[in-house]
Amino acid sequence: MMKTPFTTKEKLEEIIREIPTPFHIYDEKGIRENARLVKQAFSWNPGFREYFAVKAEPNPVILKILQEEGCGCDCSSLTELMMAKAIGSSGDMTMFSSNDTPDEEYIYANDMNAIINLDDFTMIDSFARTVGTFPKTMCCRYNPGGVFKVSNGIMDTPGDAKYGMTADQLFKAFRILKSNGVENFGIHSFLVSNAVTNDYYPMLAKLLFQLAVEVEKDTGCHITFINLSGGIGIPYKPGDRPNDILEIGEGVRKAYEEVLVPAGMGDVAIYTEMGRFMTGPYGALVTTAIHEKNIMKNYIGVDACACNLMRPAMYGAYHHITVMGKENAPLTNIYDVTGSLCENNDKFAIDRMLPKIEMGDILYIHDTGAHGFAMGYNYNGKLRSAEVLLHEDGSFEKIRRAETPSDYFATFSELPVYRTLMSEV
Amino acid sequence: MMKTPFTTKEKLEEIIREIPTPFHIYDEKGIRENARLVKQAFSWNPGFREYFAVKAEPNPVILKILQEEGCGCDCSSLTELMMAKAIGSSGDMTMFSSNDTPDEEYIYANDMNAIINLDDFTMIDSFARTVGTFPKTMCCRYNPGGVFKVSNGIMDTPGDAKYGMTADQLFKAFRILKSNGVENFGIHSFLVSNAVTNDYYPMLAKLLFQLAVEVEKDTGCHITFINLSGGIGIPYKPGDRPNDILEIGEGVRKAYEEVLVPAGMGDVAIYTEMGRFMTGPYGALVTTAIHEKNIMKNYIGVDACACNLMRPAMYGAYHHITVMGKENAPLTNIYDVTGSLCENNDKFAIDRMLPKIEMGDILYIHDTGAHGFAMGYNYNGKLRSAEVLLHEDGSFEKIRRAETPSDYFATFSELPVYRTLMSEV
Repeated sequence: MMKTPFTTKEKLEEIIREIPTPFHIYDEKGIRENARLVKQAFSWNPGFREYFAVKAEPNPVILKILQEEGCGCDCSSLTELMMAKAIGSSGDMTMFSSNDTPDEEYIYANDMNAIINLDDFTMIDSFARTVGTFPKTMCCRYNPGGVFKVSNGIMDTPGDAKYGMTADQLFKAFRILKSNGVENFGIHSFLVSNAVTNDYYPMLAKLLFQLAVEVEKDTGCHITFINLSGGIGIPYKPGDRPNDILEIGEGVRKAYEEVLVPAGMGDVAIYTEMGRFMTGPYGALVTTAIHEKNIMKNYIGVDACACNLMRPAMYGAYHHITVMGKENAPLTNIYDVTGSLCENNDKFAIDRMLPKIEMGDILYIHDTGAHGFAMGYNYNGKLRSAEVLLHEDGSFEKIRRAETPSDYFATFSELPVYRTLMSEV
Repeated sequence: MMKTPFTTKEKLEEIIREIPTPFHIYDEKGIRENARLVKQAFSWNPGFREYFAVKAEPNPVILKILQEEGCGCDCSSLTELMMAKAIGSSGDMTMFSSNDTPDEEYIYANDMNAIINLDDFTMIDSFARTVGTFPKTMCCRYNPGGVFKVSNGIMDTPGDAKYGMTADQLFKAFRILKSNGVENFGIHSFLVSNAVTNDYYPMLAKLLFQLAVEVEKDTGCHITFINLSGGIGIPYKPGDRPNDILEIGEGVRKAYEEVLVPAGMGDVAIYTEMGRFMTGPYGALVTTAIHEKNIMKNYIGVDACACNLMRPAMYGAYHHITVMGKENAPLTNIYDVTGSLCENNDKFAIDRMLPKIEMGDILYIHDTGAHGFAMGYNYNGKLRSAEVLLHEDGSFEKIRRAETPSDYFATFSELPVYRTLMSEV
């Protein structure tokens, strides 16, 4: 599969005249079309809802677009809850799925009537102690590490994952919650990140459906939803086969009809908490080649760095690069594409075949729409970039301004030296 | 070697009453004593100066302490230069060692008369084009990848490093700079991070001294300093042998007397740019155990996360943990110590033997004084912590306030939703 930018060199040049590189750009059209496809894939399930994983791309304008497409928010912290609330995603439109949760976050989530997903058995006590009463609907997170066999190379080893409860704990938790007045129950589980197979969700779904049947039978708790969480991957490399969300939805439907319907549980809603799949391919980091360096290897230095996109440095992740205007030029040069951090892992590409790059060329780093800007940091005193939204009509909008030195120095505000610092910015 | 906190449980409890966990704490006494030892180690060299690598711990209060001990600042970006200038570290008290450098940073560095270290041959043109004239003193960075043999397992493979010039380029660069009026020259090189041997600096020094003799002979450029850059490691693990800076200084002296003095270059100054060695052991991340979780493994959830200390997540780095008040308790439990990120690599320790931990116990995560706070990020909407300085007299001072949701939302300031967001904070 070819990897093609969702915009043109001319459009980027137009944007750059107003907003200098580097910046992340997002494709409203792509996000909406994909969200509609997700909805279609699960349209057989009347209660279906995708709760977008805010951590993937925590920008209220993006959240709002997804909200307009029927998505809720999956939040993992106080600030994410605040952002969800600010766009009007309260009540059951927000799921609070966190772990090692600070007490005050339960209070905030409960106050906005979000659906709360308890990561651990001990969280029942934490919640009771902190909030006092339980809402009518609660969810518990399941870790199938004890029972699930890693047999096909698809799954991570959930037994090593810090998330969720064992089956025993889950049963116990449901009984306790029920005796405390909870009426509607959800089961949540996350096994693997960036799964490359259409079988992942159906397999996880079947596992959770079977568990749900047992739980409902055993505890009498009314299971109203199953949350498949995230994990649906995207094709980062040109050769990768993209997941087919329609086939995935169909696979989940089969498991649903095989397990839940015969058990009289045909009213269970399916929830998902995808991040990467919802926005990953519809974002790109736009950066300019500013230096060429030829020593033992050939380097192209760009004006972005790992502070704008950490995945290559942290995970050795591949991100495809298109040199704008040279989409069809022959791949004649081997480059390392580097940022300016004093860290040798600050490389967007290593030994990558690319067209010959000239200084001033615009590089389009693909698939930064999820866990891209979100993982930004300020190492070496570098500043995080702006975010730009490309609307369906071709117009663009700055949806986050770039950081300035003032932002970088903000947490020194109580120090005497602060005034001197601010006089420099 | 035992690893002992530089403060007590009682002192931390006193601090926590005012500044809630998590926070990084720094030991002024340790920083000063170590800085004096470094000075002593190189006291045989009249021109010696340590330029503290600001990227390791970019806090103006820490920079000021080191300045009082005679250290300059090694800066790699605009904000770091601003910070150096704000504490009065201008002129030759600041080295600007960056790579893939944006033009405007050269202008700023030149305006404050910092010593500029050119990473690449092409930077001569960049500098000339941007700044116009060259200062009297310039430095060039050398990458010995082409000539240096990796023979002893100590060195990284510099040929894979993006930094510096080849020897050929360096000779050429010096000639061009000289013909453009530069009078004093420095040579800089960095080979390896966190070296665990006392032989690293002496070995690098000898290499650079030999180069310097050749360069001076060949080009007639007056070499006034050799910058050994950073790379001196610290003992993160209890079993690690600490580097002996006095032995290291002595090793460099021997190379100096063997190579430079006979060549009539006994006036060359030695510069260093250590970060980790200057502050690493004198900082700690203080965090509270807030959750215990027993599933397939036993977890202690703390109120810090990878956003406060990324090294374990990014590099799998070991950071020793002391449970305060249980320094001498038997190590009876195997824990994963985790933060709250929805990332399974958010673990400060994996399968670590520790005393039995109770909720509320204070955990002291060692050696976060360099590349700790500095690598902080905001993934999952988490906020970066405060920084606290423990003075020599036992008093303490907040030297950075913790981030608030307002800081997190600051770059949305131009959006209509900003007012709503701010009404939540």
